[in-house]
Amino acid sequence: MPRFDAAGLLTAVAIDVNSGRLLMLAHMNREAVDKTVETGFAHFFSRSRGRLWMKGESSGHVLKVREIRVDCDQDAVELRVEPAGPACHTLATSCFYRKLGADGRLERIED
Amino acid sequence: MPRFDAAGLLTAVAIDVNSGRLLMLAHMNREAVDKTVETGFAHFFSRSRGRLWMKGESSGHVLKVREIRVDCDQDAVELRVEPAGPACHTLATSCFYRKLGADGRLERIED
Repeated sequence: MPRFDAAGLLTAVAIDVNSGRLLMLAHMNREAVDKTVETGFAHFFSRSRGRLWMKGESSGHVLKVREIRVDCDQDAVELRVEPAGPACHTLATSCFYRKLGADGRLERIED
Repeated sequence: MPRFDAAGLLTAVAIDVNSGRLLMLAHMNREAVDKTVETGFAHFFSRSRGRLWMKGESSGHVLKVREIRVDCDQDAVELRVEPAGPACHTLATSCFYRKLGADGRLERIED
């Protein structure tokens, strides 16, 4: 079903199914998609580490996947999830915890 | 500020600031970021066409950008937008208009 790019990846966006908040963005290869469907927990492919990982495998902050949506050209997926803790490795609720201010600086957003 | 990848791109996710819905995913190069900040309307870089484009330049379905958020490693941005019409070229509200059903088939979601 999904269309993987030349590197065998597609982009995955995780959205909190309760708050609606964008939590994080990562990449999935075929195995990550299969594992996610099979286990119900979000798995990704780390481009820097070159391996499959389950989100929260060390922190415990897993993402329980409630629904998987697919975009029009099938090269991106929306994971609608219930997070078991902060999604970001910085312990922020979302990786998108800063906004671009009027002066061009990044400002922290309230959690 | 942003960290562009080897191709000079970062990933951009557009979220409807009113409904909270994930609308679309696209890519931005430096020029697209600059034009978006300068004009207040979402600009992207089309990898297939190899050029800058303003979302809605032909359809009129522009995305007015209310806020730009940046993720922890600064290689992805969240555009919080007010859409002037359907975000998808299929005229669906969102490009993510299908979900993966229990039988592995894609099912249309209500708009």
